[in-house]
Amino acid sequence: MQKNINTDTKDLFVGIDLGGTFVKIGCFSEKMEMLSKISIPTDNDRPKATMNSVVNALGSLLSQAGLRMEDIKAAGIGCPGVLDTKKGMIITSPNLPVYKGFSISRYVSEKINAPCILENDANVAGWGEYVLGAAEDVDDMVLLTLGTGIGGAVITDGKLIHGAGNSASELGHIIIYPEGRECGCTQRGCAETYASASATAKRANEMLAEGAASSLQDIFIERGDVSCKEVYEHASQGDRFAYEITELTAKVIGLLCVNIFSYSNPDKIVFSGGMIAAGQALLDRISFYFNKFIRKDIDVKIEFCFANLREDSGIIGSAALARDTFCLV
Amino acid sequence: MQKNINTDTKDLFVGIDLGGTFVKIGCFSEKMEMLSKISIPTDNDRPKATMNSVVNALGSLLSQAGLRMEDIKAAGIGCPGVLDTKKGMIITSPNLPVYKGFSISRYVSEKINAPCILENDANVAGWGEYVLGAAEDVDDMVLLTLGTGIGGAVITDGKLIHGAGNSASELGHIIIYPEGRECGCTQRGCAETYASASATAKRANEMLAEGAASSLQDIFIERGDVSCKEVYEHASQGDRFAYEITELTAKVIGLLCVNIFSYSNPDKIVFSGGMIAAGQALLDRISFYFNKFIRKDIDVKIEFCFANLREDSGIIGSAALARDTFCLV
Repeated sequence: MQKNINTDTKDLFVGIDLGGTFVKIGCFSEKMEMLSKISIPTDNDRPKATMNSVVNALGSLLSQAGLRMEDIKAAGIGCPGVLDTKKGMIITSPNLPVYKGFSISRYVSEKINAPCILENDANVAGWGEYVLGAAEDVDDMVLLTLGTGIGGAVITDGKLIHGAGNSASELGHIIIYPEGRECGCTQRGCAETYASASATAKRANEMLAEGAASSLQDIFIERGDVSCKEVYEHASQGDRFAYEITELTAKVIGLLCVNIFSYSNPDKIVFSGGMIAAGQALLDRISFYFNKFIRKDIDVKIEFCFANLREDSGIIGSAALARDTFCLV
Repeated sequence: MQKNINTDTKDLFVGIDLGGTFVKIGCFSEKMEMLSKISIPTDNDRPKATMNSVVNALGSLLSQAGLRMEDIKAAGIGCPGVLDTKKGMIITSPNLPVYKGFSISRYVSEKINAPCILENDANVAGWGEYVLGAAEDVDDMVLLTLGTGIGGAVITDGKLIHGAGNSASELGHIIIYPEGRECGCTQRGCAETYASASATAKRANEMLAEGAASSLQDIFIERGDVSCKEVYEHASQGDRFAYEITELTAKVIGLLCVNIFSYSNPDKIVFSGGMIAAGQALLDRISFYFNKFIRKDIDVKIEFCFANLREDSGIIGSAALARDTFCLV
């Protein structure tokens, strides 16, 4: 698939979004116009074979578009999991266990003869929103990804924070209720164990199993569980039980945003991930709880909004990060 | 008072610690050797008169030490309150209300004919510990000041974070118990409303007033209140009530440190402020609760320690910040 081909473009930037099922590859101009993109399957057992396929696919993509490998100035790779970004290496990635210890950015860099950076998927998406998306007008922002878990990216004074062990910005594991629900990380009361899309569905399913009165019971009885999407749909249709489930989600995210304000004081908090399909109502209730719980003794300025790069955020963000890391003065 | 005078020193850096009662002024070599220091009273009603006195005192200090004003390369001013660090201006400072809107760093800069930076007192102390104190061996650190309130400084990848409105690092206002005790900031359940020195004493006094059985009752009955220091003393002497008060302090600080780990993943958390007089027992109990509540699914490396610059941290930190802002490549 190709769009906006501009063969005048000299400097090319590559974004690679390495997922457990597919690798998305995008090629961009210096201004981050998408020149072409493609998706190939991930070989979960053979990291080098996967990256060889990525490089081959990239070669075909470029030649079809009349572009040249030699014009690639830098590449970025986004990947879920714990990474050693300095070494460009995956430490642990839940869906890619065999990739552990693979110096992925060096491998790709040697193949394409250009510098390559590896970065956590949430940081990549955050960088994309920061330079080209919903937060392009501010210097300090936080991205919260509301999906299976809650991920985060923190950009302060124009820099992504990483922390000593590359474990910064784990905002889903900020504890909201000490001694509360047990989280997959082993802590208790983490934001993500209440307010991720999965946790929202899980809380609903637990109470539906106990016989909670709700229009969701029909689905629950038939299929054995309900999805986060269905909970939000029934809430918007006036189901009281579903509404209360979504209220706790918004309350926990609102409290998390209060703590984000006190910690890094961003201009904007940008939400992404599957749960943003719930739309404006979600944003309104998060704002409501933020305003309820935030301090009133100082002037608090903050904006909440949705991400706007959506499904291409992984490739756009990683290409932009590569450009801004290696090619900006 | 003068020590370590070295008249070979050419480049001088000035640190100014502007408090509500006194202004401390220190003069340092490029290597941050203290050449001389002095303390003068703050005139709370006349900002310009105070800063004129600071400049005069500095002049005398230098000439007594055989040093010259012309050799001052930069100055730093540390001050409590909400500041506009870009403009070098105090927005609100509880003990210096009349200083609001005063372009303090420009005023001093013009008088000494050298660049001058204004910074929040916790950030100044954090920077001092980072470059010369307890955290000089790491890149990522957090300072927690345990005094009347709980203040913070966050340094990540060698940079102090400020946030969009200069309200970052307000770590005492991270909410530990939503809907818990009311804080001076109007939020509920902030860390500082349980675990600052003042809050620790306040919790003890509330329960002593209700007749709690404790060896502290004698003091309480005689004087009407007990201090945080006395609570820690009686806890160490085996008083069960005092011990339980200090345990909640350690637990809340431990939970705060868990959230700090998830947010900015520092190598070290450095504690300063009056409460560190409680010594190793405090640090041990904070570590205990941190280890109890922190996630076990990833490798967690972090160190807890006390600040070591102590009473001169304000002048050392602001002089070092001035040097590192204006004179380092």
